[in-house]
Order: sequence, then C-alpha cells, then structure tokens
Amino acid sequence: MIMVLAGGVGAARFLSGLIQVVNPADVVAVVNTGDDTELHGLSISPDIDTVIYTMSGSIDPERGWGLRDETWRAMGALERFETVRPAGSAAAPRWFNLGDTDLATHFYRTARVREGATLQQITEELRIAFGLSVAVVPMSNDSVRTIVHLADGPVPFQEYFVRLQHNVPVTRVEFVGAESAAFIDHSLLTDADTIVIAPSNPIVSIAPIRALAGVDSALTARRDSVVAISPIVAGAALKGPADRMLVELGHEPTVVGVARIYAPICGTLIIDSQDEHLVAAVEREGMRCIATDTIMSKPGVAASLARIAIDVPSNKGDH
Amino acid sequence: MIMVLAGGVGAARFLSGLIQVVNPADVVAVVNTGDDTELHGLSISPDIDTVIYTMSGSIDPERGWGLRDETWRAMGALERFETVRPAGSAAAPRWFNLGDTDLATHFYRTARVREGATLQQITEELRIAFGLSVAVVPMSNDSVRTIVHLADGPVPFQEYFVRLQHNVPVTRVEFVGAESAAFIDHSLLTDADTIVIAPSNPIVSIAPIRALAGVDSALTARRDSVVAISPIVAGAALKGPADRMLVELGHEPTVVGVARIYAPICGTLIIDSQDEHLVAAVEREGMRCIATDTIMSKPGVAASLARIAIDVPSNKGDH
Repeated sequence: MIMVLAGGVGAARFLSGLIQVVNPADVVAVVNTGDDTELHGLSISPDIDTVIYTMSGSIDPERGWGLRDETWRAMGALERFETVRPAGSAAAPRWFNLGDTDLATHFYRTARVREGATLQQITEELRIAFGLSVAVVPMSNDSVRTIVHLADGPVPFQEYFVRLQHNVPVTRVEFVGAESAAFIDHSLLTDADTIVIAPSNPIVSIAPIRALAGVDSALTARRDSVVAISPIVAGAALKGPADRMLVELGHEPTVVGVARIYAPICGTLIIDSQDEHLVAAVEREGMRCIATDTIMSKPGVAASLARIAIDVPSNKGDH
Repeated sequence: MIMVLAGGVGAARFLSGLIQVVNPADVVAVVNTGDDTELHGLSISPDIDTVIYTMSGSIDPERGWGLRDETWRAMGALERFETVRPAGSAAAPRWFNLGDTDLATHFYRTARVREGATLQQITEELRIAFGLSVAVVPMSNDSVRTIVHLADGPVPFQEYFVRLQHNVPVTRVEFVGAESAAFIDHSLLTDADTIVIAPSNPIVSIAPIRALAGVDSALTARRDSVVAISPIVAGAALKGPADRMLVELGHEPTVVGVARIYAPICGTLIIDSQDEHLVAAVEREGMRCIATDTIMSKPGVAASLARIAIDVPSNKGDH
C-alpha cells in the first residue's frame, strides 16, 4: 500500500500518474485540509476537490482547479451586491471563484457537514460520486486552519493565496487547531509500504499534515521508506508561492532548502533533472537524492515519476 | 402611507400595480418570512425575493419566481450526488430549484446573516441592489417557521409546498417562534393611512404575520381602513393550495370563507367580478364588499385593483 501526503495541483497530478503504474486500490491519498474555508455559508475543501477532480478527469486542465466546461453565472451575479455591502462587511466576496457546477459539490459537502457526517465520510461519498476508485482521505476529521501572518496581521490561507494572490511577504504560518486535531488514521503511517510526500508546498500543504500529533515521529521512525518530490525546480516553484515563502521564512529556495525541511522525516528526495548539479548538496543533508524529470505538465512524466518514487524503498539496498 | 401585508407572487403583482398609482415612497411592503428556509447552508427568503424580483422587473415572468434569463447548472450538477447520499441523509436536495444567478442573492443574504445583520438590514440592501425604490421589510427580524402538519407528521413549509407540491392533506398549520417574534415595526400598524392585505394565501402567507403579537389587535382597532383582496376566485386559488387548505382546515373555499377569516381585522373585502353574486353573502359576514377584476395576469388589472383598494378608506362614508 502506498500513502501519498498531498496538497493540491502538484499532488493531484502525481497521484494521476501513480494510478497508471500501480493498482489504484493500493493507493491512499491523505490530503491537506488546512486551507479549507467557508464562503457564502458553504464548506469548501480546495485540496480535496482538486485531488478528486484531477484524478477523475473532471478537472479543468487549463486552470488546474475547478471543473471542466464550467460556467460562472453565480459569481457574475454577485456583482450587484458590490455597492450595497456596508462598510466592514465582507459578504459575497468575488475574489474566490466558484463555478456553477462546482457549487453542487460544496452544497453536498455543506449539507453533509450539517447532518453530522465526518469529512472522511463526505470525501468518500464525493469520491464515489466522481467515479474515482482511489481512496482519498482528509488529513483529519477535525478542523485545522492555516493562518498566514503578514506584516499587517494574520489572514486565513485563502485570503493570502487567492485574494492577495500570495503577493505579500509572510512572517509566519500557523495551523490553528492542529495541536488537538487527530491524524485521520495512524495505521496508515505504519502499514504503508511506501509513503510519498507529493510535490506540494512544504510550508502550507505538507506542514499542516506534519503538525498533527504523531505524524512526524512516525515518519522519522520509517524515513527510509518515505520519499519526497521537490516542488522547487531550478530555484522556483512550478506553481504557487513555495519559493518566496521559503525565502521569507528563512529557508533556501532550492532543492537543498527543501532537503533541510524534509531530511528528518524522509530518506529520499527526488529532484528535477535541471537541479542535477545539486544532488551532492542534497545528499550532504543526509538524504538520498534522485534527479529525474518532474515537470508533470509534459505527457508521461507523472507516471514515470511515480514509478521512480515507489521503486525507491525496494532499491535502497543498491546504494 | 400604505402598508401592504404580503406573501409571494400575488402580493408581488399587486405591489407592482400599486406603485403605478401611488408614489412608491409612500408604500411599505411587509413580507411573510414564515416560509424562509435553509438549503445547502444558504439562508433563503422566498417571499421577500419574489417581491423584490417582481417589483424590480427582475422576475422570470413565466415562472413567477426566480430571475429572468436564469440557468440551472448548479442544480443539474447535484445529480451526481443522488446515488451516494446515504440512507437518512437529505443532503443536496434537488426538489427546491435555485437558479445560478439567484444563488448570488442567497450567498449575500447568508453571509450577512452570519455577520450579524438583521433580516431587515439585509432586505434593505437587497432592495437597493435590485434598484427598487419601494420599502420592503420582513414581517419580523426574528425567526418564525411555518410548519405544516400532514397525516404523517409535521413538515417545514417548503417541503409541503415544493417537494410534496402541496398535493397532500393538511391537518394543521403552526408558526413556530411566532409567539416570541416581534412584528417589524408597530408604528406602521397605527401610522399607515391604509393597510392592504394582498391577495395571498390567508393560511400560510398572511396568518404568520397575524400570529405576531399585537398585529391582529392593531388591525382590529382600525379595521375600517384595512382592505383585503381575496386570493380565491370562483372557488379556486389562482395559484397554490389556498383553496384546498381552506377546505382541509374547515373553511369554505369561497370568498365567503375568506371573509370569515378576515372579518375581525378588516373592513372591506375586494373580490373578483366572477364572484359578484357573493357580495351580499360577504356583507353578511360584516365586511364591505367590492367586486372588480382581480386577475392580475391581464395587463392593467394590478394597477386598477390597487387604485380601488387604496380608495376604500376614503370612500367609506359613501356607503
């Protein structure tokens, strides 16, 4: 069994490749819920939806989020409230786009939350609704909220990521609720043959999972069969703010910086071929290092990357 | 100043006619909120929306509810959850249609409710957003929920009205919360020159307003300047279940039955010309009675009906 610790787009693409090379029934995706949010009264789990939509082929391939063949009529109709919203009100925000057919997913999740279903139950129902045969679970059934501290004060993750377009300096990231939230299933941490840390943002996608009690220690205890894929290629994030967040929070925005973050819990770092000259530097951080093509927008890369990742533990004797 | 006690479609059409014959600034529509509901986590006020949409010319004229040029993409996308909803779950119902652009209204209302705004404040903001110059207020800022008792037990009003298509016998109607809810503005009950009871369902649209403390006694004290328009024409409701509800709850499904319900609080009943033979019977219930054309789907009828209604108090000396 292969467990993948997952954020959004990068993880979703990796998982799509993984199920091409292993039996989908042997994969469990454990997805970050720290950037879950509530908008318009709706419960929204962006990373879970991105993983389910991507793996089921429902995703809009251009945007990398939301559903294909989407329309935006509800969002457009919010415009008429722009001028009547009183000072101090944040009602009916237009900065977080929710497509008309995507809304149905949030309607379902919201209603089930109110009926008392756990996020794991709901995610399982969504998985089936989208015809996906891979287990997808939230990192926790308990609420964890990623708060990003800016010069002006703290904001919820989606405000930083979407409204401010992650274009502001970050001083600190906090996972409110993580200290009391339970990891979804501790047996996964011991029973998985391989654990893959997907090419997601180490600071806001993977760190919330690591912040749950017992996760880091379990990973540390089995770090030889934990493999991470660097989301940083040639000093830059392929998508999102991982590179500038690394700098702002005192890390090196390179695969070496990523290695320093993951070395305690992870035996191997897979980096892009463009960073092949940094293999030795990564190894000096105490990790094995494999350089290969990791840019999954190219056809076939996700599957070959997945094959390399899952071969790591069985190959470790070769090195 | 003219106060109109209003339900949904019939009241909205009457109000549209009224503002053609009087200064819109002199009209206050007090709207039933007993059939407000929550669906998908969204706060929905069907009668308020019907009044605002109709008076602002935004309503879909065919359906009589919802916005014109509407699409139904979100509703359509709910279909995929039909088969995954567990037994006992009512998540993501498809029996209550919410158009894509209509959703924006519910998003705004829901967010403002959560910010602590009163329903009156929100309704005022919606009124401005739709460019309407007539005061529209909810009957109360407090929650009142119309519960319809059926043979099988009680259901919320929208389940009866929409899901069951009001095609089941009613044994009792209850307004939960009405005993502790405050009427929106008692000064309206004394200061209005005329109070019009719109051609709405007496049992589920007007009765919730009457159930609020002080309303019936204030109307009784000034019944000479209270005018009702019968929603029953030739023994049938023009729309909705008013006729069969009257029968099921022991009333006569005629303008005489309506007269018996309104006589204590209302001096005049306007009935349709088709019921002219019942003028004397209505008068025997202690009301003045005017027969005229009341079917507002015909052009010009709403305005002429409104003119007759507001002339009633000043003409009372003539009789």
